[in-house]
Amino acid sequence: MATRRTSTVIPLHEHPDVETRSTDEHHQSLRLWLRLLACTNLIESRIRRRLQAEFKTTLPRFDLMAQLERAPDGLKMGDLSRRMMVTGANITGIANLLEREGLISRQADAVDRRAYWVKLTREGRRSFEKMAVVHERWVIELFEGLSDEDKHELAHHLGQLKAHILTGSARLRR
Amino acid sequence: MATRRTSTVIPLHEHPDVETRSTDEHHQSLRLWLRLLACTNLIESRIRRRLQAEFKTTLPRFDLMAQLERAPDGLKMGDLSRRMMVTGANITGIANLLEREGLISRQADAVDRRAYWVKLTREGRRSFEKMAVVHERWVIELFEGLSDEDKHELAHHLGQLKAHILTGSARLRR
Repeated sequence: MATRRTSTVIPLHEHPDVETRSTDEHHQSLRLWLRLLACTNLIESRIRRRLQAEFKTTLPRFDLMAQLERAPDGLKMGDLSRRMMVTGANITGIANLLEREGLISRQADAVDRRAYWVKLTREGRRSFEKMAVVHERWVIELFEGLSDEDKHELAHHLGQLKAHILTGSARLRR
Repeated sequence: MATRRTSTVIPLHEHPDVETRSTDEHHQSLRLWLRLLACTNLIESRIRRRLQAEFKTTLPRFDLMAQLERAPDGLKMGDLSRRMMVTGANITGIANLLEREGLISRQADAVDRRAYWVKLTREGRRSFEKMAVVHERWVIELFEGLSDEDKHELAHHLGQLKAHILTGSARLRR
């Protein structure tokens, strides 16, 4: 979402009337979907803002480094792209910049010369780990309105939701 | 998210190993956040795909019309922009196209001549309502892995999460 609005006004998902489309005549599932989307937007926007303020970095950059951190041997560009949690990012553009800054390295695949492997450099790993510790603290703070029991239930229901969509009827997989 | 990747491969949030960044040493809240994000990405991608396949339209277009449908007197462009649930969309570009297609109308504000009001035309309302019925059915299907009781609990916990972030300590509002 590199093109996310940069308006200075408070975006709706931070307004009290965030679920505008949601009225009584709407079905429970539709209201639930809008609430899920509103929560995700809200948390994402807080994390973006703080990454910018404290590390002068963006969420797609952070996400890309996070994916590489999980893969010590590196990833092919295509796999990296599929693993990104932030949608809409220009992966190649970000990778070019990170390489120029010495945070990732790139290497042609031994077999398929058109394919590239990318991995974090030692400097990149150090840089990511510093951010990751702080990022995790933010996430903990954002979720601290829920008890451990609440979080457990929420994770369980989201797991059910995901499993149903991924393994459900052919209709759902369209 | 007008720039969302258009790769033909299955994006990670539809993979079984979707929460790659999530390992045991990660805190419960971080795992929960990644799961929340994965669910949102998964549902969004299904809805995008179906809007394209069945109505040859995009999620930002649908979202823009949905916001106007909730505002029979129309909205100022700035308010419309704040109400959008889909982030990263080029609101002005979409509004221009919808106006050209006769689905929305635009009018200068009587007081602030630089401000514009947009509203759905009768044709636009008809077009949106047709899509909205089908869209709601998709959402119902996507959530049908949860019982009414599960949905109620999920909505409750997401409400707690949102309320905590919106009304929580100053630290959270940063």
